[in-house]
Amino acid sequence: MKFVTGKSKKLTTYREIAEGGQSNPVTVHGAVHLLRDMGGLAFLTLRMARGAVQCVCAPDVLPEGLCEECTVELSGIVREEPRAPGGYEIAVEALTVLSRPAAPMPVALGKGPLKLNLDTELALRPVVLRHLRERAVFRVQEGLVRAFRDYLTKQDFTEVHTPKIVHAGAEGGSNIFKLDYFGKKAYLAQSPQFYKQTMVGVFERVFEVGPVFRAEKHATPRHLNEYTGLDFEMGYINSFYDVIEVETGYLRHAMELLAKEYTGELELLGAALPDADKIPCLRFDDAKRLAAEKYGYKIHDPYDLEPEEEVHIGQYVREEFGSDFVFVTHYPSKKRPFYAMDDPEDPKYTLSFDLLFRGMEVTTGGQRVHDYAQQVAKMEDRGMDPAGFESYLMIHKHGMPPHGGLGIGLERLTMKLCGLDNVRYASLFPRDRSRLEP
Amino acid sequence: MKFVTGKSKKLTTYREIAEGGQSNPVTVHGAVHLLRDMGGLAFLTLRMARGAVQCVCAPDVLPEGLCEECTVELSGIVREEPRAPGGYEIAVEALTVLSRPAAPMPVALGKGPLKLNLDTELALRPVVLRHLRERAVFRVQEGLVRAFRDYLTKQDFTEVHTPKIVHAGAEGGSNIFKLDYFGKKAYLAQSPQFYKQTMVGVFERVFEVGPVFRAEKHATPRHLNEYTGLDFEMGYINSFYDVIEVETGYLRHAMELLAKEYTGELELLGAALPDADKIPCLRFDDAKRLAAEKYGYKIHDPYDLEPEEEVHIGQYVREEFGSDFVFVTHYPSKKRPFYAMDDPEDPKYTLSFDLLFRGMEVTTGGQRVHDYAQQVAKMEDRGMDPAGFESYLMIHKHGMPPHGGLGIGLERLTMKLCGLDNVRYASLFPRDRSRLEP
Repeated sequence: MKFVTGKSKKLTTYREIAEGGQSNPVTVHGAVHLLRDMGGLAFLTLRMARGAVQCVCAPDVLPEGLCEECTVELSGIVREEPRAPGGYEIAVEALTVLSRPAAPMPVALGKGPLKLNLDTELALRPVVLRHLRERAVFRVQEGLVRAFRDYLTKQDFTEVHTPKIVHAGAEGGSNIFKLDYFGKKAYLAQSPQFYKQTMVGVFERVFEVGPVFRAEKHATPRHLNEYTGLDFEMGYINSFYDVIEVETGYLRHAMELLAKEYTGELELLGAALPDADKIPCLRFDDAKRLAAEKYGYKIHDPYDLEPEEEVHIGQYVREEFGSDFVFVTHYPSKKRPFYAMDDPEDPKYTLSFDLLFRGMEVTTGGQRVHDYAQQVAKMEDRGMDPAGFESYLMIHKHGMPPHGGLGIGLERLTMKLCGLDNVRYASLFPRDRSRLEP
Repeated sequence: MKFVTGKSKKLTTYREIAEGGQSNPVTVHGAVHLLRDMGGLAFLTLRMARGAVQCVCAPDVLPEGLCEECTVELSGIVREEPRAPGGYEIAVEALTVLSRPAAPMPVALGKGPLKLNLDTELALRPVVLRHLRERAVFRVQEGLVRAFRDYLTKQDFTEVHTPKIVHAGAEGGSNIFKLDYFGKKAYLAQSPQFYKQTMVGVFERVFEVGPVFRAEKHATPRHLNEYTGLDFEMGYINSFYDVIEVETGYLRHAMELLAKEYTGELELLGAALPDADKIPCLRFDDAKRLAAEKYGYKIHDPYDLEPEEEVHIGQYVREEFGSDFVFVTHYPSKKRPFYAMDDPEDPKYTLSFDLLFRGMEVTTGGQRVHDYAQQVAKMEDRGMDPAGFESYLMIHKHGMPPHGGLGIGLERLTMKLCGLDNVRYASLFPRDRSRLEP
């Protein structure tokens, strides 16, 4: 009878090799990232789960036919070597090949930045992601998600998992994927909006990290048809500024975590962390006006914010307040969904906001209608039939606290943080109008 | 100009009220869970984000028309009261109503266990989840997910987010939801299998928590058509027992976390934590035989494990080894997908396993084929066309380490842990053949 007890091996990381220092014997595994045969000696860059290390092999330890993307286990002695990346290398004493590729890589991973066009890069994504710079983006992304959960858990939020196959769209419009559900018409969730509001009635504060589906026909560098939403919703708020404060707290925590645990990846990407200690808030119409005045252009549509205007507002707060972030508040009602709470002082505007980061919207949030009669009236004003939303309106009917929340687009946040010029680079396997594979 | 700095308020929990002790003045908010007017005095149970507290109101502080599911803010003095649940109550000095329901609750939340039939319960889920016992299930579920992430992050796993709209199913068969993707045929992911294997080539160890879609026509107490998968995949394994060790380590960590931070919820549910310190492993055919011998029944199909047999095997390990868990290993090849690695000692079986928990499968995992030629041959043996899986096979072609992984069904794990008799009770808003709403 065999029993297991949950012993598991920790990995050896590059940092541990370096910390062990000179003359330290190590056994490590990884993929042959780059192999250079210098006659006599072979220099091998071993790609590890974290980092990569230069290894030097004398001819007698070099197996027949070793090639790039072989996976190996090797043991040897660590020694200082100022010419090696990181300052250390391993003098290999024994090397075992664990697996061999069937064909050489279509691109050279170990020789500086890849300069592929977008289509080629995305078609080859399954292997191109092995490039150290490419994968660094997704380590940073992991840090952003970790910080989100850790921060909100400490703030007494409960994590929830809500369905992605739904009977009605939360955000309205035609931008919704349809599917056949055992003969019934169903949709893919455009957001967890209805469900996270429902859960405020249960746990007061909830969050969810999950996929969001938008059947938008855009083909821009800032749109994906499937993305990862970082959503939270909280009850008993005094105003939507309570929501903004929690997001700001999250961003501060995220930047601290990245500064502490993801420095290698940030350096590889040349990414500078923004300061999230103090974020300015500007009303929608003030933000539009101030940027238009400063940069001398005319406002075309007083009720909408074009991507170009977001860039200008981003530049404005950068120059005026030294901030990479700005909360733009009080969006016009007609641009916000039916569950947004109108501003009682001027119902043409809502108690809502977007967060712009380096000139691009990365969050939409606000206070929601919690009163049943008010919500039904707002739906009827918009020509919606409340009868189609019975299970959602159940929460208003049976009592909801004043509440609000937001949704952050993880890929956009990653994109702007890493300085990428297309959101597709911030998605492992992006989905756009023409891309369903890999 | 307004600036925000990320100050956010912590919530007051019942525990803090109790810890503050006698004569402590507090201000708290929550929903009126139960209201009993005892002539003169009114007793009000305040449902908080965590826990609930009894509050006593003299007539002069009781607002006109206060009713259950009003949300309120109240302040008062904490005092010991042995007859109150938890031993403390608040003598209310001031109470403000924040919102009122439009209609009374369809069920009584504050009066002991709900005894609704499944259909009624699920139709009323948005408000029934406010019941303290109902919501406790999802706090326990949160603990299971938190432990999964925390444990794997400490073991150097990287969290990933992979697409749910896919061009090909990973698990084969007809149990797959189809959708129209801008005129192309697409599917909902039956598992993150291809993508998590791909990411082993990038980060060596990865995990994902996300929705999984199965268009199965089952109508059983153990099947959902959308569930939450806890998936991980790891490279450089010596055998699938390395995967089993990581899962065991996770389970131990999860039970420790639950014992530490979720005791209130476990007590409410009357749920006993299993011992995960030492889990027996039985080969598939041995497990079948031993249970059949002990309980005196005949094996119908030597290549399949019926739900009833899982129950018997669960009973067997409970009686023989005192274990709530058992790893059943070496499943027959014909019951496993094309990416499962066959046992070189007997290719009728695979290097794979299921974990049974209290007599029900909650995990499927194993070692995967990593060699390109071997994977192509196995697909061809099964009549599959490798050309349809080009972007998946790219990883094998360009080199993969020996690897394996698993997928845990979160709702089943929650169900068995909380002692529920239907997996639907372990899903906030379950999806089954007839249920698409709420």
